[in-house]
Amino acid sequence: MARANNVSVSEVVIDAAQLRTIVVETLVGNGATPADAEKQARILIEGDLRDQHSHGVRRLPVLVERLRRGLIVSAEEPTAEWRSDAVAVIDGHRGFGPVAAGVAISSITEKAETTGIALAAVHNSNHVGMLAPYVEDIAATGQIGIAFTTSEALVHPWGGTRAMVGTNPIGIAVPTDDEPLVVDLSTAAVSMGKVLDFAAAGRELPLGWAVDASGDATTDASAAAAGAISPFGGPKGYALGIALEVLVATLTGTALGTDVRGTLDTEEVATKGDVFLAISPRAIGGAAVLPGLAAYLASVRDSGRMPGDVSIPGDRARATRRARLEGGIPLFPGLWDRVRELHREVRVD
Amino acid sequence: MARANNVSVSEVVIDAAQLRTIVVETLVGNGATPADAEKQARILIEGDLRDQHSHGVRRLPVLVERLRRGLIVSAEEPTAEWRSDAVAVIDGHRGFGPVAAGVAISSITEKAETTGIALAAVHNSNHVGMLAPYVEDIAATGQIGIAFTTSEALVHPWGGTRAMVGTNPIGIAVPTDDEPLVVDLSTAAVSMGKVLDFAAAGRELPLGWAVDASGDATTDASAAAAGAISPFGGPKGYALGIALEVLVATLTGTALGTDVRGTLDTEEVATKGDVFLAISPRAIGGAAVLPGLAAYLASVRDSGRMPGDVSIPGDRARATRRARLEGGIPLFPGLWDRVRELHREVRVD
Repeated sequence: MARANNVSVSEVVIDAAQLRTIVVETLVGNGATPADAEKQARILIEGDLRDQHSHGVRRLPVLVERLRRGLIVSAEEPTAEWRSDAVAVIDGHRGFGPVAAGVAISSITEKAETTGIALAAVHNSNHVGMLAPYVEDIAATGQIGIAFTTSEALVHPWGGTRAMVGTNPIGIAVPTDDEPLVVDLSTAAVSMGKVLDFAAAGRELPLGWAVDASGDATTDASAAAAGAISPFGGPKGYALGIALEVLVATLTGTALGTDVRGTLDTEEVATKGDVFLAISPRAIGGAAVLPGLAAYLASVRDSGRMPGDVSIPGDRARATRRARLEGGIPLFPGLWDRVRELHREVRVD
Repeated sequence: MARANNVSVSEVVIDAAQLRTIVVETLVGNGATPADAEKQARILIEGDLRDQHSHGVRRLPVLVERLRRGLIVSAEEPTAEWRSDAVAVIDGHRGFGPVAAGVAISSITEKAETTGIALAAVHNSNHVGMLAPYVEDIAATGQIGIAFTTSEALVHPWGGTRAMVGTNPIGIAVPTDDEPLVVDLSTAAVSMGKVLDFAAAGRELPLGWAVDASGDATTDASAAAAGAISPFGGPKGYALGIALEVLVATLTGTALGTDVRGTLDTEEVATKGDVFLAISPRAIGGAAVLPGLAAYLASVRDSGRMPGDVSIPGDRARATRRARLEGGIPLFPGLWDRVRELHREVRVD
């Protein structure tokens, strides 16, 4: 059983490797192949390691229920079909999102070494989780990685009163001499998970995060949970979010708006799509890493009043990740209890 | 001479076609070939037609001065070299930005019909102007268009005190049954042109648009003009902006941060880069336009309290453009005087 230190009344701290083992065993006990379970567990743990708990083991109960109901099927390998020289269509065969994403990434990073750029359009696959680890996997090959995905409609259009757009995140990783620059941002002002956390804690939301069921801006987290999240950055975030909604759906032949299902619920087949791009600077005759990039990034990091005021995208997530790999992952006790309960249900010892 | 109706003390209204002729003649009179002048003039007029005056004929005096000083050379055609199956490197030979962009777009839209996706990386080319017309050109071929470009460092990193990142815009166009969905947004909260307009009018800036020379948030437009613009949407806009800065520079082998020159000044060779992508839904076996897209976009347009509360990105710019093609382009009298003066200097009649 995992080491669980109570550090406060409100959280327990769990060792990352032990948490991963528990997640793998739980998924395997519910019908996942060990290889698939490892890939899915890695992505969940990465969410918690980077303090993106909305993509962490909080998702495990839904994944388990979806496995039990046949909404996630861990059997067939995802298939990649090259529909043109540089674009592959990936059929996830209703499997885990991270498994199809892995096939997508190995396909396009190999291809981009000759084509310079390659794109994978993924359909019939489950929730992919946070994007950073995927674009980091692409960057680890020396290529620039970009990822887009659609998700259930939780965000209202700018000027609109109800949820019609996914939180549609953008992932970008660019190799540097050191760790890559990594962007992983939702086009929503906040995650619904955080709104629910505020509601559970009885805390007020900052104005601008959400609207209520009538479409009025609200600071009441419970009212927001029944309403819609606002796009980040006002009309620009809305423009980006809906552009990605339409771009991903067009390239993957998947659903739009409120027809996107199966990323949060336990009732419906997943109808969202994912798009991954890999671009090889080497394959186009460029330097793998631009001369001067390290100096530029150092000067940006140094452009605040105090050290640490400015970070390069990816810095903070990496620092949190390192600290949690060392010191453990804090979880709400209720969640930890639920994870252990799911684990107990499948343990055979 | 152009029809110039005084509609108020603060603006004159100029016919778009006549303004375009004046711009073309002015550029030709300063050494541009007629073909190049047409391409550059089109982009400037498109800026004014869409109420993006910071990309409009306001740029003409700088372009003329750059031509006179040999910083823009309108002689050699841009060259496109396919460095890999799906990536072309475009050398603009120090020519007009829109001319190199045109070569980039015709190259990649042709290529993407067999490769599915193609990318052009442009260097040694001048300011490209607003991105919407380029991605619209790609969408007009039935393909999805994406454009990124770097620009002079005017934006401070999130948490930073001074300008180190360009306003680095994103352009995206996705074909629909009707007009394309078109995003063209800067990763800055506002353009420096608008800050200067506020300063000239003695108006206060909204908080969050800019910082002063000390790096403190300011509502004083003159202080902001001596400081830096803020990224849009806080840390997310910064993350996007710097990711595009590094991505574009890496793929084009161009400059970073404060080394990006020659887009606003009249002293330096342009050192920025542009990246264009074309993706063909048809070439990957998909529908040119996703079934259900028209219904989705109609439902989004209809999701406000009142008709017109919600628009699809591109709607408003098109409406303004149509009105101005019909009724003329409003210009500040001082700018119009300057344009006429530049035109008079080259007229031979």
